[in-house]
Amino acid sequence: MSEDTGDVKQQRSTNVTWVESAVTREARETRRGHRGAVLWFTGLSASGKSTLATEVEKELFSEGYFSYVLDGDNFRHGLNGDLGFSPEDRTENIRRVGEVAKLFAESGALVLTAFISPYRRDRDRVRALVTRPQDFIEIHVSCPVNVCEARDPKGLYKKARAGEIPNFTGIDAPYEKPREAEITVETDVGDVKTCARQVIDFLRTHEYISQKPQPRSNKG
Amino acid sequence: MSEDTGDVKQQRSTNVTWVESAVTREARETRRGHRGAVLWFTGLSASGKSTLATEVEKELFSEGYFSYVLDGDNFRHGLNGDLGFSPEDRTENIRRVGEVAKLFAESGALVLTAFISPYRRDRDRVRALVTRPQDFIEIHVSCPVNVCEARDPKGLYKKARAGEIPNFTGIDAPYEKPREAEITVETDVGDVKTCARQVIDFLRTHEYISQKPQPRSNKG
Repeated sequence: MSEDTGDVKQQRSTNVTWVESAVTREARETRRGHRGAVLWFTGLSASGKSTLATEVEKELFSEGYFSYVLDGDNFRHGLNGDLGFSPEDRTENIRRVGEVAKLFAESGALVLTAFISPYRRDRDRVRALVTRPQDFIEIHVSCPVNVCEARDPKGLYKKARAGEIPNFTGIDAPYEKPREAEITVETDVGDVKTCARQVIDFLRTHEYISQKPQPRSNKG
Repeated sequence: MSEDTGDVKQQRSTNVTWVESAVTREARETRRGHRGAVLWFTGLSASGKSTLATEVEKELFSEGYFSYVLDGDNFRHGLNGDLGFSPEDRTENIRRVGEVAKLFAESGALVLTAFISPYRRDRDRVRALVTRPQDFIEIHVSCPVNVCEARDPKGLYKKARAGEIPNFTGIDAPYEKPREAEITVETDVGDVKTCARQVIDFLRTHEYISQKPQPRSNKG
């Protein structure tokens, strides 16, 4: 029994009136001119998830849409600061990210998440969590591990090889590729603009955003 | 060391370019025409937090602003489904709500939270968490416990008196009133419209939203 659910629904006092019509998700989406959804980028460390999510966000913003990137940094230092990298903690990490992403989608935002999310089961759980099936768009940021390791922008692969980071995805912890991702981008083949265009085209074709590109705006 | 932070910043491969200019919070706020902030409603069960938050949201939406209500229901069934009502769990509950509210504010939204949040320390922790001091607006939804108990829309007070809900705020668990809330509304005195107006006026006076009321719109 939750106290927090006991606030309203019906009020006996005439001083506080029950508010019948909250703002619906549909009303928000109509106002914003796009659908709310979770764009779930998954892939190895250094595969380009954050780079790509950031580029897609820029593109969406330039067309006047509202999107927001949830990234590992924000979460590991904030909401999920109490979690480590054990399989259980990784699962809980992704569960919480999924719940937060769902809230953003409900609010009408196009929310982009950039987490390795190596376990298929965890990603499928987020897919099952969202309100509408089309709210979850899985984007496999595909890149061979040797290419990721050659990039190694923060020297994490090097440390993993030296045994300094145990349970490193792709080295001594598994990455389970998506079986039916809505989108697969290959960052070892296409550049970031090309990959971002692929994502935007999907959103357009499936009517998350307007089918016609919106005039670009630099103001505000 | 977080794997999820190891994605970008600098890329060796020419195929993935580091994206310099992410969309800033300032750019979002300019585009939206209002500041991002957390409107933190706190008060006893049945004091009218959710009713009031919902009314404020409606008003904001009708003027074209983007707001979203985070409520106990969504959280207790979702993100915080693993938490109970012990003092420790209540603290963790509010910590997580605070972290999520911060993300919404960062995304440029006016986010309204409707949680009892009985401990001053927990609320102050959220206040300390947000990026800018003015991001946190504490709203004390004040109502004498006997009035809340008379309302008792879900019969929770009755159950608490019968000993069926232990640790019920205001009955056998403490509610620590805010000492320096930005806004105090008295729901036993003013009706919901009046209280909502008080909140909107604060947002206007302190330039979270335009100082002049925006034309009302019913379209989308």
